[in-house]
Amino acid sequence: MKNCLVAQSGGPTAAINASLAGVIHAAMKSEKVDRVFGGRNGIWGILNEDFLDLTERFQNKEEDLELLKQTPSMFLGSCRHKLAGKDADAEIEKIFQIFKKHDIGYFFYIGGNDSMDTVHRLSAYAKENGSDVKIMGVPKTIDNDLMETDHTPGFGSAAKYIATTIREIACDTNIYPVTTVNIVEIMGRNAGWLTAAAALARSEDGCVAPHLIYLPEVAFEEETFIQDVKEKIKQYQRVVVAVSEGVKDARGNYISARSDKMDVFGHVQLNGTGKYLESLVAEHVGCKVRSIELNILQRCASHLASATDLEESFGLGAKAVEAALAGHTGEMSVIRRISDAPYEIEYGTASVDLVANFEKKVPRSWISEEGNDVKEEVLTYLRPLIQGEAETKYVNGLPQVLWK
Amino acid sequence: MKNCLVAQSGGPTAAINASLAGVIHAAMKSEKVDRVFGGRNGIWGILNEDFLDLTERFQNKEEDLELLKQTPSMFLGSCRHKLAGKDADAEIEKIFQIFKKHDIGYFFYIGGNDSMDTVHRLSAYAKENGSDVKIMGVPKTIDNDLMETDHTPGFGSAAKYIATTIREIACDTNIYPVTTVNIVEIMGRNAGWLTAAAALARSEDGCVAPHLIYLPEVAFEEETFIQDVKEKIKQYQRVVVAVSEGVKDARGNYISARSDKMDVFGHVQLNGTGKYLESLVAEHVGCKVRSIELNILQRCASHLASATDLEESFGLGAKAVEAALAGHTGEMSVIRRISDAPYEIEYGTASVDLVANFEKKVPRSWISEEGNDVKEEVLTYLRPLIQGEAETKYVNGLPQVLWK
Repeated sequence: MKNCLVAQSGGPTAAINASLAGVIHAAMKSEKVDRVFGGRNGIWGILNEDFLDLTERFQNKEEDLELLKQTPSMFLGSCRHKLAGKDADAEIEKIFQIFKKHDIGYFFYIGGNDSMDTVHRLSAYAKENGSDVKIMGVPKTIDNDLMETDHTPGFGSAAKYIATTIREIACDTNIYPVTTVNIVEIMGRNAGWLTAAAALARSEDGCVAPHLIYLPEVAFEEETFIQDVKEKIKQYQRVVVAVSEGVKDARGNYISARSDKMDVFGHVQLNGTGKYLESLVAEHVGCKVRSIELNILQRCASHLASATDLEESFGLGAKAVEAALAGHTGEMSVIRRISDAPYEIEYGTASVDLVANFEKKVPRSWISEEGNDVKEEVLTYLRPLIQGEAETKYVNGLPQVLWK
Repeated sequence: MKNCLVAQSGGPTAAINASLAGVIHAAMKSEKVDRVFGGRNGIWGILNEDFLDLTERFQNKEEDLELLKQTPSMFLGSCRHKLAGKDADAEIEKIFQIFKKHDIGYFFYIGGNDSMDTVHRLSAYAKENGSDVKIMGVPKTIDNDLMETDHTPGFGSAAKYIATTIREIACDTNIYPVTTVNIVEIMGRNAGWLTAAAALARSEDGCVAPHLIYLPEVAFEEETFIQDVKEKIKQYQRVVVAVSEGVKDARGNYISARSDKMDVFGHVQLNGTGKYLESLVAEHVGCKVRSIELNILQRCASHLASATDLEESFGLGAKAVEAALAGHTGEMSVIRRISDAPYEIEYGTASVDLVANFEKKVPRSWISEEGNDVKEEVLTYLRPLIQGEAETKYVNGLPQVLWK
């Protein structure tokens, strides 16, 4: 029997703790696993041996494990530490010493692109150095930009939040009989999946919003945008625009009021794309205009989580454990779609080589010719992912959260 | 038998359509009322005889009336038209001609301060000119700033949204073991009730956020704010600040990055209070900092409506009808609190003279001495208002809305 270690990384989602619950649940019930440890703050915590005994925390506490599923963001905390700098080799060596010291046989890293790069490096080291620690990735990202999996945990809940919010904003936009443009800025640096999900708001019974959708996959042109808005105003008077924070001009520069900040990975920090479009409408159309940034609310709104997303996130955590126990390493658990309607999936695994440092974008053929809307294919793909409402437990009028 | 007319005004809430449903339900079942008409876009629609036959729309359609309750914003549309300009006398006269033409015996106006001024003017005109049309107000505003009623419809749902969101933001704030300040900007020009509701997020099981709360009722001092933030960072490292968009300095000037826009009523349009505090923290503390504007999401988030709020909003609509049928006029239906725990209320009415153009603010004695938090009295007052979850109907993964 070996111990198992799990950690979380990257940005929060409403479903990443459901994956953690899946790992804990599957590992605790296995006869091959002794203790399940959690590393606090991803790789940082592992390097510092900052472990939490999850077996002790959750054994015979089914109710807490259920609460964990509905708790947004990372129960174990996160980090943005990449095993890629000049200290990387020494850090990787140290990690394996720590694995040995704590008798870790299985390591699970729940995260996005960068985290899968970590899984890749650790599993490569194990292979080269004859270590039999199994290293598995569990996907996570609201951006839905990971290769090899049909979609990513956390995305469905964010998509459900975005579509619901767009409908509520549409109701709010329609109250005055005056020309009104509301611009909704949605997360997504390079992949437009989240912004595309805004289209789910439309319904045959009366919701036309969003009237325009701009994704980072298509070069943004100011003049075309202004023309688009004017045409929609002519037709609808009140217009809702969904725009990705990451839209870029033809030269690849972000359309953003402030694009001079960078995060620790050298990613440009985006802010103000909606504000910028607001200023364009104010100047060139001259009507009532407002921009609304969904901000971090879209990634942590557990109160509106998709039941499908939570179930699959849990399933992917459990699948990674199952695969590791069967001897897999250097892989990520994935979802494979069998059919759209009825929606059917199966869990599998894929080599992290095929995942790390790639980005899956919205195919150009799924975006309208004009580049200001998405096609039916997107809706067929997205619709199953937002189905079902999480059975959120409320106490004192507020959703319960597992704080510690 | 007379006809009944109802209209909505002011800004949207998650509960104003529940009040409309209450008016429709009570009026349709009365033997004194023939048809129930809705005026589109408040006073504008009445002046233009833009009526919707609500009896036809909702008779024998219980399900639609239920959907109306969970539909955010105004089903009948809104206006910002005040009967106060140089044309006011002529407009009021015209309104009474239209009342006569359509055999209107009862007029219900659902709105806030400005709408109660309209109710006041119309009922005063009726009294002076021997008209027996009964004019009644139904309160509405997320700001909770109306006099005479314990609290206002729409406020409880907004408060529930704000407290839930603060908890989710707290989870998001805590992921990295680095000094982090997240600033949440909440609506409220002069009354801090909505921002005070952020305090409901705190719980004994582990939620400390928000760590600081700034209301417009207390003069805002930059230096004190920076000192407050530094102290909370020392204690908690990750800090959530709730700030009202309407905080002002000692001279009464809005602390806002852009305070040069005005709406049609001459109210200063606020924007950027959070952004401004963000810049203060960046400059004087120098840590990771972000501002989040809850924007119109906080007033239209029906998916998170308070069941208590929806029930009371419906009740206030029905109460106004009951009072009008009993001969009352120039009054607004109100909630009187009988006890906090168990929470018990009764419906009543109050003269709009006592409501129109007044604002109820958070008492200074309910705010901490330092002016950066609220006291227990606020929580005792607020807690009952967010209790219970609306039984939202979902279709295709999204809350249903009555679009027309």
